[in-house]
Amino acid sequence: MSALKNDTFLRALLRQPTPHTPVWIMRQAGRYLPEYNQTRKRAGSFLGLAKNPNYATEVTLQPLARFNLDAAILFSDILTIPDAMGLGLYFAEGEGPKFERPLREEWEIRNLTVPDPAEHLGYVLDAVAQIRHALAGELPLIGFSGSPYTLACYMVEGGPNEDFRTIKTMLYEQPDLLHHLLDINARAVTAYLNAQIEAGAQAVMIFDTWGGSLAAAAYKEFSLQYLQHIVAGLIRQRDGRRVPNIVFTKGGGLWLEDIAAIGCDAIGLDWTCDIGAARARVGNQVALQGNLDPMALFAEPQAIRAQVERVLTSFGTGSGHVFNLGHGVSQHTPPENVGVLVDAVHELSPRYHAAT
Amino acid sequence: MSALKNDTFLRALLRQPTPHTPVWIMRQAGRYLPEYNQTRKRAGSFLGLAKNPNYATEVTLQPLARFNLDAAILFSDILTIPDAMGLGLYFAEGEGPKFERPLREEWEIRNLTVPDPAEHLGYVLDAVAQIRHALAGELPLIGFSGSPYTLACYMVEGGPNEDFRTIKTMLYEQPDLLHHLLDINARAVTAYLNAQIEAGAQAVMIFDTWGGSLAAAAYKEFSLQYLQHIVAGLIRQRDGRRVPNIVFTKGGGLWLEDIAAIGCDAIGLDWTCDIGAARARVGNQVALQGNLDPMALFAEPQAIRAQVERVLTSFGTGSGHVFNLGHGVSQHTPPENVGVLVDAVHELSPRYHAAT
Repeated sequence: MSALKNDTFLRALLRQPTPHTPVWIMRQAGRYLPEYNQTRKRAGSFLGLAKNPNYATEVTLQPLARFNLDAAILFSDILTIPDAMGLGLYFAEGEGPKFERPLREEWEIRNLTVPDPAEHLGYVLDAVAQIRHALAGELPLIGFSGSPYTLACYMVEGGPNEDFRTIKTMLYEQPDLLHHLLDINARAVTAYLNAQIEAGAQAVMIFDTWGGSLAAAAYKEFSLQYLQHIVAGLIRQRDGRRVPNIVFTKGGGLWLEDIAAIGCDAIGLDWTCDIGAARARVGNQVALQGNLDPMALFAEPQAIRAQVERVLTSFGTGSGHVFNLGHGVSQHTPPENVGVLVDAVHELSPRYHAAT
Repeated sequence: MSALKNDTFLRALLRQPTPHTPVWIMRQAGRYLPEYNQTRKRAGSFLGLAKNPNYATEVTLQPLARFNLDAAILFSDILTIPDAMGLGLYFAEGEGPKFERPLREEWEIRNLTVPDPAEHLGYVLDAVAQIRHALAGELPLIGFSGSPYTLACYMVEGGPNEDFRTIKTMLYEQPDLLHHLLDINARAVTAYLNAQIEAGAQAVMIFDTWGGSLAAAAYKEFSLQYLQHIVAGLIRQRDGRRVPNIVFTKGGGLWLEDIAAIGCDAIGLDWTCDIGAARARVGNQVALQGNLDPMALFAEPQAIRAQVERVLTSFGTGSGHVFNLGHGVSQHTPPENVGVLVDAVHELSPRYHAAT
């Protein structure tokens, strides 16, 4: 494979010096881009895109053609694993992801097995390989999965949810059963992310979208413990280069010390954390990724630049920061405002890095 | 007025010794109680209940007849103030509160005025007086309002919302206009809570339901600053007794030190904070109220008792804790499980308090 031309993202995740702060955007290939919506229309649906490596490659590259981003991220979904387990992922218009066959009975959970990525998730691995080839060493490629607890939420509840009543009743009443499910999910995520790394992913991110809905003690027992198992099982090195990992628990700002202690390379921060305060707490152990409020992208360019500067100033000088939003970019965002953000990071950040 | 027979709640808020940990439940008069649903049917609607002092009194007292609670809370809504300003509060079935006339234009915000509680919110003050009389000194009565930022969210967005795009665009692009709105709201909330105190409320709570959706710096500038103005303007003493106040920012666990510094008596905690960790951070300045996960009430009695014990143990020995859920009780909760919680607090907590 060709040498990587822009490795600022990978270096920043390992807290190595870079000339500027690298930037990418969660959901950078998404509905705010008209070209994405056109490809999606051709593919027929979101899953039609995600399950076809040609389409997945096409939409992964779209934001890179528009914006001066420092990383590409595989176009896929956080819920591919339960789909591979046979639960039947689908998307009802305007309702978010759902499963045709959520886990309602104890025997259904006891019967689950870890899917073989090559056999059941080959379309993802093909997409990773194809995107990596298409990138031709210009930018690093990020692979990802949902976290064991976040997968379990969808698997048990069957879809998006306000209070997580079903899974939390299990958590408080049948903790052993939930641990069984989480253990299977953790082994599945580990195998899946390692298969993505072997197919060409140069960094991996675990999205713990719903870990923040847990009480503090329950977060450690039912989410973080399994994130730790995954991190411990990931391939560390590939083609002579370290493969960094990023753990993102939305709403996890209270638990940064605990997250840093599992041995991950970087922590994703949502926008409610002050990134400078977060750095003071854990910045000697991990890199930090984030964390502009996605809603700041609805303001005028001047205001966006001011908010970018605010995040950069809060983090301060030195390495270990990957700029991103604190959550996925909204589908209603004017695309040109993403460009304002990306350009502002590149223009404003060099002064926070020592001259090399 | 008659002397208060059970003042454990008021004493705990001021970190004075009590023989047990007092307990009440957010939304304790609500849809999980069949008798509430019957009264609501007679009243025709939620607002029919809230705007009629007889009905409001009736439903306020209902949970007290069932459970051994240590406080009563006025039956009302957090959004009465914008309704009194003329925005037209209504509830669409299953959709949460909405306004008929949300604030869409700058001139609408510039034209807002602080409503006179006696003139525009007399039904609330009548309910407070009537409930206080009906309580006959058995238990203290809590008054409340939404916070300035939370009111502004509903006033600008018009209803419940996923991303708060409209108000956040204002926040990032026209901060002065939002400050104007928040200043009016803060003066309205102060006058309203003081009128509730004069009508008989013995403690007041400010619900900052949406403050936790803000970036850290924005929280301080657009929510906490105005909470501080309110706390500074509240009546401190009434009938020879201190009137304690409680500030509850849902999702505010990262900012407890900042909240404690505004001079409030107590901080409400949602269930994501470890209450022992919170006490270590701010427990020498304020009391803490909370913080069991409301979903724990869907488990069996044994599991509920174990979770109650967990919260009590985490807080530890000594005064300054009011037991509550970390959020309002779910409408789907089996009422008998609320009884299990209340009884468990009274049964298990005395050992955490020094013998008097």
